[in-house]
This record gives sequence, C-alpha cells and structure tokens, in this order.
Amino acid sequence: MTILIASQNKKDVSAWHERLAEHLPGADVRHWTEDYDKAAVETVLMWKVPTDFLFDLPNLKLIQSLGAGVDHLVGAALPHHVPLARIVDPWMTGSMSEFILMNVLRFFRYDPAYRHLQAEGRWEDLGTPDRFETPIGILGMGELGQDAARKLRMMEFPVMGWSRSPKTVEGVESYTGRDGLGRMLRQASILICLLPLTQETRGLIDAEIIGLLPRGAYFINAARGGHVVDADLLAALDSGHLAGAALDVFEPEPLPADHPYWTHPKVILTPHIAADTNARTAARQIAENIRLVRAGQKPNNPVDTRRGY
Amino acid sequence: MTILIASQNKKDVSAWHERLAEHLPGADVRHWTEDYDKAAVETVLMWKVPTDFLFDLPNLKLIQSLGAGVDHLVGAALPHHVPLARIVDPWMTGSMSEFILMNVLRFFRYDPAYRHLQAEGRWEDLGTPDRFETPIGILGMGELGQDAARKLRMMEFPVMGWSRSPKTVEGVESYTGRDGLGRMLRQASILICLLPLTQETRGLIDAEIIGLLPRGAYFINAARGGHVVDADLLAALDSGHLAGAALDVFEPEPLPADHPYWTHPKVILTPHIAADTNARTAARQIAENIRLVRAGQKPNNPVDTRRGY
Repeated sequence: MTILIASQNKKDVSAWHERLAEHLPGADVRHWTEDYDKAAVETVLMWKVPTDFLFDLPNLKLIQSLGAGVDHLVGAALPHHVPLARIVDPWMTGSMSEFILMNVLRFFRYDPAYRHLQAEGRWEDLGTPDRFETPIGILGMGELGQDAARKLRMMEFPVMGWSRSPKTVEGVESYTGRDGLGRMLRQASILICLLPLTQETRGLIDAEIIGLLPRGAYFINAARGGHVVDADLLAALDSGHLAGAALDVFEPEPLPADHPYWTHPKVILTPHIAADTNARTAARQIAENIRLVRAGQKPNNPVDTRRGY
Repeated sequence: MTILIASQNKKDVSAWHERLAEHLPGADVRHWTEDYDKAAVETVLMWKVPTDFLFDLPNLKLIQSLGAGVDHLVGAALPHHVPLARIVDPWMTGSMSEFILMNVLRFFRYDPAYRHLQAEGRWEDLGTPDRFETPIGILGMGELGQDAARKLRMMEFPVMGWSRSPKTVEGVESYTGRDGLGRMLRQASILICLLPLTQETRGLIDAEIIGLLPRGAYFINAARGGHVVDADLLAALDSGHLAGAALDVFEPEPLPADHPYWTHPKVILTPHIAADTNARTAARQIAENIRLVRAGQKPNNPVDTRRGY
C-alpha cells in the first residue's frame, strides 16, 4: 500500500512521512514527484495541486485533503467514485480560535490606536470598552466557527452565528438564510468570516453586506480571499464605514506586492497563517480514514462535493 | 450621610455620583474639593490623593479604594480604626483578562514579526507555534491571576501560578516561595505579572528573576511599574534574553517622554489601560459595603494593611 503526498509544499513531505509511519508502520509514503507504482497507491493526501494524475491510479480508495478547506478540490475534475475527506483537526481548530481571539481583542481594545500613540510618544487613555455591548457575528458555524464562538462566549462577548442550517451552541444566537444574515449583520460590532468557499459564498462580502454592519464595525477574514469583493472592502475602510480589517486570506496568494491591502493603515495583514494542519495531531485521523476505506467503510469528515464542503 | 469622592480624575465624579444614587437614593455624594460637612462624611471613595483630610472626619466608617490596587493607600498615613476596602469588580477582572489574552496571543502567534513583514511588504510564513509547548507563568494568583489562568487554560496553554499561599485552580500548577518561583520561571515561555505591589514584591522583576526565564521568553506587566527594575528589563530585551515585553504600568506615570520604553522595538506600550473600574458594575458593591459598615459589620474585600493587599 502506497500513500502519495501531493503538495507543492516541500516542508510537508518529511513531516507527514514521519508521523504517518507512527500510525501505519510499513506504509510506503511517497511524494508525487518521486517514482511510484500507480497500482499500489490507495490514498492520496492532496494540497493544492492539479488533479489529473488521480485518474491514472486504478486502486485509489481515498482522496484526503491536507487542510480543512477543500475549495482547491471541489471545483476540480475528480474520480467521483473515490471518497473525498477533509481534515478536522482539533489542534488546527484551536489555532484558528487563537487567531480569531487575538484579532477580536486587538480591535475591541483599540490596540491599533495604541500602537500609533506609542509611536508618537503620547500617553492617552482611550477608555475601556464594554464587552457586554460588543456583539460579535460569525459567518460559518462549522467546527471552526463553533469553537471560536464558545471561546468568545467564555470571554463574555455576545456572540451570533450564521450558517446554512441552525446550530445550537450554548449562549450563541443562531441565524440562517438571507434574512437572518441581515438581522445578524445589523447588530455586529465585529464580523468574522469562517465560511467554506463555495459557489454560494464566493463574493458574499460585498458592498451590500458590509453596508448592513453598523458604522465603525471591524471585519476579520480567516476563511478564503474569494469570499470578499476587495474593492468593496477597501471602499468601506476608506469611507470610515469599517474601522479596520484583519485579513489572513487573499485571492491570489501570495498577495501581489502592489495590492493596496499591504499598506492600508486600517488593514492588519497576515500571510495565511491563522491555522495550519499539524502533522502530529492530524496523522492519527488520516490513518483512521485509511483503515476505514480499506475495510470498505466511509471515511470520517467526508466532503459533499455538491454542497462544496 | 455624605459619600465623599476623593480622586484627581474629574471624569470619575459624575459617573460615580450617578451610579451610587441608583443604589443609595438620597445619599449626599460630594467631591472632596467642594464644601461639605465633615461630621456627615461616613464613606470616602479614594483614588491616589493625599490622605491627611481623613483624620478630620470624626464619623468616618469606611475608606473604599476605587481600584483593585491599594498600594496608593497602604503606604500612606491612615486612621487605622476605619476599615479599608478595595474593589473586586468582575467586569474589571474580565477587562484585565482581555488585556492578558490579547498580549499572550500576540506574542505567541509572532504578531510583532508579522507587523514588520507587512510594513516591508513581505509574504512569509513563520510557522504555527504549538500552544501545548508554550507554558505560561502567572505571578500573583488573586482574583485577576485566577481569572486569567482559567481563560488561558481554556485556550489550552499549560498554565502555572505563583502566589504567597497555594491556590487551587483546575489544571493550573501552583507554586509558592522563592524556590517555587525559580522552578516556575525556568519553564515559562511567557511570564505575566499580576501581583499586588507591596514591600516584598517591589523590584521583584530584576536581572536575577529575568535570568531564570528561558531565552526568548516574553514578559507582560499589568500590575504596577514598581515591580520591575527597568534597567534590568531593558538589558534583557537588548541582549535578546527576552524576545518582547507588553507593559501597561510604569513608575512614574505618565511615563516620561524620554523613557527608552517608548521607542524600544521589543516593547508594546499601553498607558495603564488594562483594566479600569466600571462605575456601573462597581457601584453595587460599594453600596453594599456602605450598608455593612453602617450595620457595624466588616466590609467585603477588606485590605490587610500589614500584608499590603
């Protein structure tokens, strides 16, 4: 049995090789640019590479995305008889919540203004904001959204979540549909995007949606660059309708050197680092998925390609 | 009955006046710079003003600090037959934990480096650090330290706390004494100071203590400037022994314009804004203390002036 690692990221290969070996002793782990026996490949671990070669693997049993987002696979040509699974790694989920809380707290506590005051050598108390009066809206209430919601509740912020189907998270108001989206946005002091990127969510964050937020709201995007109409977001920052944005994801990536986000005074930019799959913690669930498909069962965390996540 | 507000901060007066009136209708609330009948004063709300006038109040029943820290009172001359109380306001405690988590996450997630990379227009992934391998040490495990500890545990960091007496917080290792301090410091990737300022803790954070931290550790001070030997902290930042410091408190305040902290590239500076007493939430407990002392009972959250907090 060969496990093929198909990723442009060379760093990935040795990490996954080592960790998978712990769970699947004797497994033949190869990088797709090496030589390998096509008939021996049962599992491919995929991350943002062309999918053509998958059709040449006669005994393929599992296509396993190496990340939580599968937009890199859903739009591509795939052998549809082979199950497709994504990673739902609690370690990665926790990393995402770290990123979300860091940016929520940064905006809520006026930290960008304090950075400017320090640079100018000015001692000035801007007052202490009240978390009870700072509702936070989360777009996307899957594993990532629910974990962020729970941790923001623990910090005592009012939290609202918008998702395709209603979600029950203690103390979190659930909104669904276009109507529910509007009702949530009108209350949100900080809006967080953790949606999957699908045909329905591409370009969702546009002038209309941003316009529903209260003046002075903040936006955090840790999902995909494709969710945002960049020109509309920039216009809302420039007009003062939005007070700031923390952006981790872009289209394309890396973000081109001349893109206005780089130098915008209201943009906190990070290079898609909010949450990374951890080979140590994720190898166990990949190994479990391999065992499941070899036993003729469905893998955990399957992807519905019609739904798009 | 007159309640006297003795604070240099003029903002305080109207806020406290309004809120106290809700809980104590009919109470005569005055600012100490106004005229008042000395014999009518039963309570003084104090914040960083000279204490001499307290001896001229024959019916004084309660000296109530308007903040959690009482170092501004403990060293001063006080009529020792009058009980002294401090504010332990859950709203303020939550604000402090917001400040602590913001700075822990900022340092842990390499945010200062990402701010530089954005300024330079460089797209560079620094890797995702592992919270399970980032132990956090808290100096001072009173209300503030315990709340921060619980919230950092909820974010899944290993958390250690050092205090005068052992403290039981679920999942938090308790250390006491000089020996325990050394054992905690040697493991701490991030050190947080939330101690009361007393004769025993003044100047605690010196070259020796900092030297026990692992190379590359971070320091967060949200207690009092007097806890730190500034020259030793600056030397540790300059040598690279410490990777960064978030400092909210200084001696004196405001921090003088020519102090090296203002421009130090490894210092995140805020002007004593981590946690402010909230008149809305604290007025209730002040009113309760006034009722208690009028009934001949001890106030809640009394201060032990010998211990210093």
